[in-house]
Amino acid sequence: MWDRLLVDCNVATFEERPGNPLGLIENAAIGIADGKVVRVGKRTELAGFRAKQVDAFGGAWVTPGLIDCHTHLVFGGTRADEHAMRRAGASYEEIAKTGGGIASTVKQTAAASDEALLEQSRRRLHALMAGGCTTIEIKSGYGLDPDSELRLLKIAAELGKNEPVRIAPTLLALHALPADQRDRRAHYVGEIVDKLIPAAAKQGLATSVDAFCDTIAFTPEEVERLFKAAAHHGLRVRLHAEQLSNQHGAALAAQYRALSADHLEHLDEAGAKALAAAGTVAVLLPGAFYALQEEKKPPVALLRRHKVPMAVATDCNPGTSPMLSPTLAMNMACTFFGLTPEEALAGMTINAARALGLAYAVGSVAAGKQADLAVWRIESIAELGYWVGLPGPERRIFGGIDN
Amino acid sequence: MWDRLLVDCNVATFEERPGNPLGLIENAAIGIADGKVVRVGKRTELAGFRAKQVDAFGGAWVTPGLIDCHTHLVFGGTRADEHAMRRAGASYEEIAKTGGGIASTVKQTAAASDEALLEQSRRRLHALMAGGCTTIEIKSGYGLDPDSELRLLKIAAELGKNEPVRIAPTLLALHALPADQRDRRAHYVGEIVDKLIPAAAKQGLATSVDAFCDTIAFTPEEVERLFKAAAHHGLRVRLHAEQLSNQHGAALAAQYRALSADHLEHLDEAGAKALAAAGTVAVLLPGAFYALQEEKKPPVALLRRHKVPMAVATDCNPGTSPMLSPTLAMNMACTFFGLTPEEALAGMTINAARALGLAYAVGSVAAGKQADLAVWRIESIAELGYWVGLPGPERRIFGGIDN
Ligand SMILES: [Zn+2]
Ligand SMILES: [Zn+2]
Repeated sequence: MWDRLLVDCNVATFEERPGNPLGLIENAAIGIADGKVVRVGKRTELAGFRAKQVDAFGGAWVTPGLIDCHTHLVFGGTRADEHAMRRAGASYEEIAKTGGGIASTVKQTAAASDEALLEQSRRRLHALMAGGCTTIEIKSGYGLDPDSELRLLKIAAELGKNEPVRIAPTLLALHALPADQRDRRAHYVGEIVDKLIPAAAKQGLATSVDAFCDTIAFTPEEVERLFKAAAHHGLRVRLHAEQLSNQHGAALAAQYRALSADHLEHLDEAGAKALAAAGTVAVLLPGAFYALQEEKKPPVALLRRHKVPMAVATDCNPGTSPMLSPTLAMNMACTFFGLTPEEALAGMTINAARALGLAYAVGSVAAGKQADLAVWRIESIAELGYWVGLPGPERRIFGGIDN
Repeated sequence: MWDRLLVDCNVATFEERPGNPLGLIENAAIGIADGKVVRVGKRTELAGFRAKQVDAFGGAWVTPGLIDCHTHLVFGGTRADEHAMRRAGASYEEIAKTGGGIASTVKQTAAASDEALLEQSRRRLHALMAGGCTTIEIKSGYGLDPDSELRLLKIAAELGKNEPVRIAPTLLALHALPADQRDRRAHYVGEIVDKLIPAAAKQGLATSVDAFCDTIAFTPEEVERLFKAAAHHGLRVRLHAEQLSNQHGAALAAQYRALSADHLEHLDEAGAKALAAAGTVAVLLPGAFYALQEEKKPPVALLRRHKVPMAVATDCNPGTSPMLSPTLAMNMACTFFGLTPEEALAGMTINAARALGLAYAVGSVAAGKQADLAVWRIESIAELGYWVGLPGPERRIFGGIDN
């Protein structure tokens, strides 16, 4: 006797079947017990099973709950003033002079109480959940010193309490060099490597370590120093790579078996091959491409050719992607980057789960996985790439329970 | 004794005050009776008034309810398949060969029962309402013959029943020439002018008449024939103008004192001057610009220079702008067209009301106007242009009542 049986629905399982790469099942049924999927298949295949509760979904489509695998959700203040100044014609220099940019967020984050940070972050979390997310990655990165980064990871953990959503915490250890550390880069990186990494690992506050590798951020050598420390402490790595220039960060990430390499607008073929060989997921972030009005797009054809798994995420952050909607991230991945709707949806389900090292538990509808599901009132999966600003699913199911 | 008194809020009234073009009031209060605003001002100015119900909004921002002044909301089916085909590399010709384009929507609309059309249109209506809309324009236009167009206007009217939202119905009389009418354009236009316009006017099904003036649609001469008939039957006009080429449609619209000219990517200075002189609103549609991945932008600097009022709308339609979010329309107007957040918000409040001829009743927070309000949990109005995919307001108030 199962807890729930979901019927009168179609399911995009994202478990490949022969001739059916998305594992689409029409006239499907899903059996759920103890918060997990017990069995999924044709309604007729599950005819003999009984459940305490049977829900008929009137022909809706069921997908895995969406997974936003790249966010900077916890921050203080907004940068709406900078956004408005840019629209009114102010240059980046003028904005920087008024104290804008990431330094502004670091300052506002430090000034905010834990309660204030929790409250405004929770609103963003709820927006992503309303959009269909059942798993959300949250990076630290607006602290910039060990204690402040640990504080942000604790707030990310606290956010997950009393919420049905699964939070995947990432320590974004090398994000930006503080202005007062400009003359001692090596010392700064040393503090991060020697103090922050061991502390985060010891306290179990993050499952992976991230960095920003670019001319305006950190060098490949500095990133490698970080990756070695992460490996030493048993933490997986990921990397903001090839966003503004080609630093060969993807190859570096692959060398350290990174879970993901993110952005990748300037990725070259050697980098794509390296990602494929390492099984590293390419995370595409159309919200940043949009908000920055970039022209250089990630090389999707190259990624396809080398069979690099592609994920899609909101990159929710106050400066370059103040995006609050996972369905919009999928639509923008289609519109700007030319992904098919199926690729976009795989990018926010199974491939996003891979990018978080969580594919054993979430990202597809399969026996043994968490019953995290989104129920959409649509005629076909293609609609998830088609609508611009689609509200979230009709039902969101976290561990078998509607929420 | 008023019905409601809203306090502990800031209000963007969109009623100009000296040195305060948006009429912003901090620490404000709003008095409501019989569904209308009775008085709005500083909290202290309203100190002596009493109400049956007092609501404290904890410092939230209150704006007029949003107005989406350009939608094609009532249609059958979707065109998600075409969208997916384009992403997978199909050309427009290939799509046309499979029966795609507007003909596909006309066919799916004709095939759908009234109940089916109502149900799927209502879902879109609810999405726009959730996004903060309290007034929504709906155009017909997927019928193409008199009876079918009247049917769509009746469905638009039916949609408004049992919903707190105000529907503004527009007869889009000349949208596309049916394939079987290619050899008798004049006859087709004659049927529309002689049969459809009088019938719609007589039955009170539309308050304005619209057309699509472009090389792929109707000529200025055909549009003028329509506008004369509309004027004869006491209906205001509006026009899809200068979207794909410069047909001098804006000047034509202005000549007939059109409520609005919409799209305007190819508008020239003479057109802008004509709009300004006639008081015709320029309606900007960033969703179509986005979904079609256009490069030519409407000349916002020109519109500002000539003080043409600018509105912003979703253009919700199945082919070129399947957009369901008014907050996203505002954000895209800022991102793509360079509007300031204040201009974008004016574009979905007071100027949208003007574009519908409804500024006497809605579009600002002022004594005598409908108490249609949106309550936003934001620090500043600029956030309404800043967030990408912002969910709707925390509260939506229709005629003084939360909904
Ligand atoms: Zn990022
Ligand atoms: Zn239109």
